Amino acid sequence: MAASSLSNYPPELSPDEEQYLLTNLKDWSIAHGLAVRPPPSFVTATQDPSGVLASTAPVTLFPSPFPRNCFEEGLAIQEAYNELYSAIARDEKWLQGIVEELIDIDDFVSKLWQTHLAVKKEGYVQDLTLGLFRSDYMVHVDQSASNATPGLKQVEFNTIASSFGGLSAQVSALHRYLLSIDAYPASATSVIKAEALRQSKSASSLARGLATAHKAYGQSRTGRPLCVLFVVQDPERNVFDQRHLEYALLEESGVRAFRLPFHRTQADTKLAEDRTLLYSPPNSPATSYEVTTVYFRAGYSPDDYPNEADWTSRLHLERSRAIKCPSILTHLAGCKKVQQVLATPHSPHLKRFLPDEKVASRVLSTFAPIYPLDQSEAGQEAIRLAKNPESAARYVLKPQREGGGNNIYRKAIPPFLQNLPETHWPAYILMEMIEPPALKNAIFRNGELQSGGVICELGVYGVCLWRNGSGDNQGEILENQEAGYLLRTKGDQSEEGGVAAGFGAVDSCCLVEV
Amino acid sequence: MAASSLSNYPPELSPDEEQYLLTNLKDWSIAHGLAVRPPPSFVTATQDPSGVLASTAPVTLFPSPFPRNCFEEGLAIQEAYNELYSAIARDEKWLQGIVEELIDIDDFVSKLWQTHLAVKKEGYVQDLTLGLFRSDYMVHVDQSASNATPGLKQVEFNTIASSFGGLSAQVSALHRYLLSIDAYPASATSVIKAEALRQSKSASSLARGLATAHKAYGQSRTGRPLCVLFVVQDPERNVFDQRHLEYALLEESGVRAFRLPFHRTQADTKLAEDRTLLYSPPNSPATSYEVTTVYFRAGYSPDDYPNEADWTSRLHLERSRAIKCPSILTHLAGCKKVQQVLATPHSPHLKRFLPDEKVASRVLSTFAPIYPLDQSEAGQEAIRLAKNPESAARYVLKPQREGGGNNIYRKAIPPFLQNLPETHWPAYILMEMIEPPALKNAIFRNGELQSGGVICELGVYGVCLWRNGSGDNQGEILENQEAGYLLRTKGDQSEEGGVAAGFGAVDSCCLVEV
Repeated sequence: MAASSLSNYPPELSPDEEQYLLTNLKDWSIAHGLAVRPPPSFVTATQDPSGVLASTAPVTLFPSPFPRNCFEEGLAIQEAYNELYSAIARDEKWLQGIVEELIDIDDFVSKLWQTHLAVKKEGYVQDLTLGLFRSDYMVHVDQSASNATPGLKQVEFNTIASSFGGLSAQVSALHRYLLSIDAYPASATSVIKAEALRQSKSASSLARGLATAHKAYGQSRTGRPLCVLFVVQDPERNVFDQRHLEYALLEESGVRAFRLPFHRTQADTKLAEDRTLLYSPPNSPATSYEVTTVYFRAGYSPDDYPNEADWTSRLHLERSRAIKCPSILTHLAGCKKVQQVLATPHSPHLKRFLPDEKVASRVLSTFAPIYPLDQSEAGQEAIRLAKNPESAARYVLKPQREGGGNNIYRKAIPPFLQNLPETHWPAYILMEMIEPPALKNAIFRNGELQSGGVICELGVYGVCLWRNGSGDNQGEILENQEAGYLLRTKGDQSEEGGVAAGFGAVDSCCLVEV
Repeated sequence: MAASSLSNYPPELSPDEEQYLLTNLKDWSIAHGLAVRPPPSFVTATQDPSGVLASTAPVTLFPSPFPRNCFEEGLAIQEAYNELYSAIARDEKWLQGIVEELIDIDDFVSKLWQTHLAVKKEGYVQDLTLGLFRSDYMVHVDQSASNATPGLKQVEFNTIASSFGGLSAQVSALHRYLLSIDAYPASATSVIKAEALRQSKSASSLARGLATAHKAYGQSRTGRPLCVLFVVQDPERNVFDQRHLEYALLEESGVRAFRLPFHRTQADTKLAEDRTLLYSPPNSPATSYEVTTVYFRAGYSPDDYPNEADWTSRLHLERSRAIKCPSILTHLAGCKKVQQVLATPHSPHLKRFLPDEKVASRVLSTFAPIYPLDQSEAGQEAIRLAKNPESAARYVLKPQREGGGNNIYRKAIPPFLQNLPETHWPAYILMEMIEPPALKNAIFRNGELQSGGVICELGVYGVCLWRNGSGDNQGEILENQEAGYLLRTKGDQSEEGGVAAGFGAVDSCCLVEV
């Protein structure tokens, strides 16, 4: 992406230009619900005890340039990714092999697995599962190759609580609006032009996914009205992102949804004798609804389970007849170890799940090589790469444990390993660093503007509804759709971070030819 | 409105019911731009220097019951009111008579008139005028009559800067949403039901009015792109109300609009030799637009003219070829004295402007009697009524001066007059109090909930575009539409106040039979 028109992108703004752009951005964002609840460091609970204040969500001022071929490839292969992860989630035996390698080092994975086993013992009563997935990529430019074409490399695949689908649709509309009112200086319009901007359809597509599951659940078994449950964290600053899906679900499909704080699960829901999930809203305890679909926007991280009662809640929901988005097996399919096993060079696993060679090779080409640090052949190669400062400079060391954080980057890897007993090495994986092109943008966050080098991450959403098989029957996919995109942009100073924490923002794609 | 189902309206909410309703109200309002910038008493400029915070606009929790016949009559006669005020604005000679009575007591009216005269001397170059009107009413129940049917009585007629059309449409959508998610307890649903709620179409109707003027302006005379100017106060807390019109104008009609702080008029606009109004956005001073329509959301109050330069700005805009919404004559047509002269018992004026007797009598029946305190026959009757404490109890004494405030109510009138030299009495009018039915509601404002007796004011918006005549030609109306409604509700403790100041909120109508 070395096109000369991009070297001056984004344009410098004069004070008047900046004021015009920001004034319009601030008003449009609030008028269209592109908002978050402010963090306590900005507005304290004492100041706003009833929580009526909101602020513009962290956004970029400009849409970031993104190679058209990468963008189109990301969207084009989403159905293949949906198929892949649906197949993994349906292959309990294979997942068991993955989980067994993690059980001793990762309590969270172990707890999830036990919860699945408990339900399995009793027998699952719902054979449908919904995935609202998001496959995250960065653009990779091979620095060692001359004239290298940028390609898409996967950062991770999210099978639970894929966020920002509600706000992403609004950000692409914001950038289009700013273009239409000439908030971008003329010098930038060779890059930012209407035909280059891509509207994300994520909000309505994800809502349609929920509606599809809701409908596939079938008629009420108890004569009660039907509903979808959004299982959420409480408090939730990113609430409008979730609300946009809920409103789209109601307006476009006429489906009622309720927000259930995860810790209220046992107070507000119960299972009928046949494990139909019943929900009673606290405001109307005498009323109850039959839940068709449980949509987890909480429960994805160990932090959501401070007490044993929270695991009881997860078990309770998993036991139920409601369609889970996602089921525990689908949640486990998203763990990093799965990604690593698929992406280990010469891995036989991908073709197990994607028998079509052409499809598999397109997916494979988005994998950055990932190595285990164990006794296997690939593991031995990894250890050689990681101990050598020169080769280590192209890698990142990540804990197998879920949840991010604690990554070791590049030249810091060899001394880190030197200080770590070898028995602990298998708790890490070694991943080739994705080398994104140098880009700049300006991020507006909590009223502060920061400009500079940025890194962009493209997330492609997918909706997949499938029926689990049993025995030799492998089940079947009932619905499989690409569902819009997210562009998430953060400062390139931070190797970690995302929009919800740190210096990051929701962005949109301005396609460029490379 | 003594229907027994209303005596317990609105229903008492349990803490859980209140929390459910408020949580959903707070999130929906921000997600849909039903918002205001918080007052400095809530969020200081130091805390949020770049102004990114917003809060839920002051709203009622429940739609207020409103007699169906009154609501329908208000909407039905709006076109007659548009016709009436358009005719007044076209009758300069008649308006001159009104203004001459005010010139000595009201600087503001005097300044407006001088501004008009200055332009008249030079000759107006634009014969089209746009009115975005709002006729405000209360429901009046004659306490002395047994079995009285509630009727609509006009509070005032706004010919400039009629506000809340943007938010009103959102509040009726909010109340419908709250009903659809069962946020209103079952005990209230005999009153609040889908078929009783009225969606206000004000935002898109007012925007369409601006688009109609924009189109009627015709082609650019200078080859420049065309635009509408929103002349605004700066800062403006009620900015989203205005922005919703701007966005509707852009999205539904493809018309560009800019916000011009009134004090920036001379810096950012200039007149071409033929008095075409040109606007240069500060962010792009080399670009200029030809202004088709000047929409005043500032300039309506003496507070907007702290310096003589502000009067120069008003003159500058009035001289221009842009269509004014409103022109100065139209602005003057909205002064209280006009309302008083029309509503003085046995006034001959109404039929001058509304020759159709049937139409005139429907309009007349919405007038509350208003008397001058002067030497006329009606004036002498007024003085008798005002001095007697018993009759005074049914009246309010208002200064002729524009701008509200300083009203004297009921029994306070006789002692007030006693202390006022008789020469100052003509500076006041005496208006029969409108006696609204006893109603209750709950108002949510800056995070605080206040419940109790309320007074509701129905505003009906009108769009009217006309061509001024000259000489014997009286001009003609080109567009005349009812344009949605506003229900504004305030605590009944305050005799003064509105949503933007004090204990008041935007509401919506729940129609009831009486």
